[in-house]
Amino acid sequence: MDLVSEKFAKLGCDNAPGQEINQKEETLPLIGDKLEGRRVDFSHGDVDAHPPIPGSLEAFNEGFAEGGVQAYTEYKGRKAIRDDLAAKLAAFTGAPVDPANLIVTPGTQCALFLAMGATVGRGDKVAIVEPDYFANRKLVEFFDGELVPIYMDFEKGEKEGKAGLDLAALEEGFKQGVKVFLFSNPNNPTGVIYSAEEVAAIASLAKKYGVTVIADQLYSRQVFDGRPYTHLRAQKEVPENLITILGPSKTESMSGFRLGVAFGSPVIVTRMEKLQAIVSLRASGYNQAVLKNWFAEPEGWLADRIAQHQQIRDDLLAVLRSCPGVYARTTEAGSYLFVTMPELKVSPEDFVKILRKQADVIVTPGTEFGPQFTNSFRINFSQDHDAAVAAIRRTVELIERYRK
Amino acid sequence: MDLVSEKFAKLGCDNAPGQEINQKEETLPLIGDKLEGRRVDFSHGDVDAHPPIPGSLEAFNEGFAEGGVQAYTEYKGRKAIRDDLAAKLAAFTGAPVDPANLIVTPGTQCALFLAMGATVGRGDKVAIVEPDYFANRKLVEFFDGELVPIYMDFEKGEKEGKAGLDLAALEEGFKQGVKVFLFSNPNNPTGVIYSAEEVAAIASLAKKYGVTVIADQLYSRQVFDGRPYTHLRAQKEVPENLITILGPSKTESMSGFRLGVAFGSPVIVTRMEKLQAIVSLRASGYNQAVLKNWFAEPEGWLADRIAQHQQIRDDLLAVLRSCPGVYARTTEAGSYLFVTMPELKVSPEDFVKILRKQADVIVTPGTEFGPQFTNSFRINFSQDHDAAVAAIRRTVELIERYRK
Repeated sequence: MDLVSEKFAKLGCDNAPGQEINQKEETLPLIGDKLEGRRVDFSHGDVDAHPPIPGSLEAFNEGFAEGGVQAYTEYKGRKAIRDDLAAKLAAFTGAPVDPANLIVTPGTQCALFLAMGATVGRGDKVAIVEPDYFANRKLVEFFDGELVPIYMDFEKGEKEGKAGLDLAALEEGFKQGVKVFLFSNPNNPTGVIYSAEEVAAIASLAKKYGVTVIADQLYSRQVFDGRPYTHLRAQKEVPENLITILGPSKTESMSGFRLGVAFGSPVIVTRMEKLQAIVSLRASGYNQAVLKNWFAEPEGWLADRIAQHQQIRDDLLAVLRSCPGVYARTTEAGSYLFVTMPELKVSPEDFVKILRKQADVIVTPGTEFGPQFTNSFRINFSQDHDAAVAAIRRTVELIERYRK
Repeated sequence: MDLVSEKFAKLGCDNAPGQEINQKEETLPLIGDKLEGRRVDFSHGDVDAHPPIPGSLEAFNEGFAEGGVQAYTEYKGRKAIRDDLAAKLAAFTGAPVDPANLIVTPGTQCALFLAMGATVGRGDKVAIVEPDYFANRKLVEFFDGELVPIYMDFEKGEKEGKAGLDLAALEEGFKQGVKVFLFSNPNNPTGVIYSAEEVAAIASLAKKYGVTVIADQLYSRQVFDGRPYTHLRAQKEVPENLITILGPSKTESMSGFRLGVAFGSPVIVTRMEKLQAIVSLRASGYNQAVLKNWFAEPEGWLADRIAQHQQIRDDLLAVLRSCPGVYARTTEAGSYLFVTMPELKVSPEDFVKILRKQADVIVTPGTEFGPQFTNSFRINFSQDHDAAVAAIRRTVELIERYRK
């Protein structure tokens, strides 16, 4: 097998959200009948239940009407749009943003890809968190980096009022030559926020050891229970090379527009633009126009959205916690719950498929977030409230049915 | 310098179309005064002069109204859209297309990136044509391939009724272990179509030597003077691994939507989808909806567009050919003219900058298409007719002014 074949043999996406359509029908060890109820796809948010920012379509139409100047922007995004974003993101993150060092990308996924492509070379050590966003591991492998996984004990962390990242292991990794540290905050899949102390420690360790940090803060606007959220880039000590990634795809339900932003170190942003030039030229020109409404939503819109999601979270957690042996840490930000199941008569992989077949419930297997999370699954609870509660009731009923 | 720094030191985009804004002001060896006239940016087409397919905005709005099903498609694109495209592209290219082996990408640039990423590994030999699309060379370098340039003598080819590709050199390259051959047809920047014999020869050589072919046919609908266009994928002998790339960004002026398609070998398309999953997930969901109008334009729309561009081509060529020492092969398809200049008192790089400063005319330097094309530039003549003619008159006036 040649190098490219090897690489792609490792790279899979059939378990990724929205890709289940590609999975083959299999004979599953089914018990009992199907549970009726409206199908819920927990692999991603439901933008019909929680629609995009008001005025998005109008802003797109205005962009289209502008014609060529909006169709053909600079590769890193139209200057007026970057100027506007820079001011808003500086206010949100608590530290200045230079529009020259900000790039608009086709979704935060592309921001991650470009940031990793701009910093990770063959054999470079890259620290990632386990569990964390499933693409992080794949990106390291695609760019021929060497994975240095750092465990986050989110269950223990819950009791101690922190995320639970093993900071000693992180420092040890840095000492051993880690070049890049990539992590999401709030953490995907657990919905955990890193404490102020953890963020400060990550920042100063990275500075001390000269490690590049890529901070994926995709869900950082949707914070529950009035918790504090700490922006790494606003710390006293920050690493010399730092890229912060945000986008309107989640809380704001704008995924269908494919827009993200990355900002930070000039050297890295310049490389990201060079790479974007050969990856996809730019984020769709007309789509960029909708960014004017981001961080400029109608009064009360964000607070409402947060309140609705907090209610869904609470009601799902009540159902899940009625089931002995199920554990899920309370989501602190974002729309994810990472659910640990009790021992079952079937393999966890089969159970995920059984859930789809017998309950019309689609979840993402825990192993997408780290190889050790075999008995977990992630749900995105940005769904219709009643449909989600009913779907989680069916899920719990099947856990009971298949319990060992 | 580490591996990543080395790679990005080579990768530039400041001379790429639309990026001139990043170039620093310099002291240029100017002669005489500025020529007044409307600014023309020949680095890309003018979508205000030649607007997108009628109904594009409406189709986008319908896609948005569909909500979640259109926002979150499979990574390779929504199935109904792929089914429709496959039928239309089969009819256009003259050979069956399986929708399962077709991927919708964020622009043809991303189709190229994914196809190259799916086939080129460290040290693999990749044959490219000189001159050809400037990103081809950069893609080979980014994926750590080894460039095997094959010269196309388009001036000699014009006299012989063919593109002028050095087929002997191509076969020699294949013998020496070339793994992938990437080329555009019509050729970018010359607007030359490969003859039926050349296409057949490329196909059978690639089959014989087991070379993967990536055929970028972006501009293949806009053919002038009723010339025949030969689709490589419809040949009797085709290589086992073949990817054909098309998109509505050029002739159809849809670049602001960032849409492209690639189709062909199942193994490569599967890899491209895996790669797209970590690059940008999918082409913007709502944007995919506009593809329904592609290859289904109103009666006569494409013929009109071709006729308009043929007229612009003829009028620009008449002006250019009035200037002794200027050579440009007549465009056979697409909207490019590749202009060779006589010897000037200033360097060709300076002349391109002088053109911008003294004539408000933006062109793309020839060296973007191959290091040897120092005294050439490319123009995209998909512009307002009168503005383009006036701009080329100013260009010729400056060539006279700076002539040695």
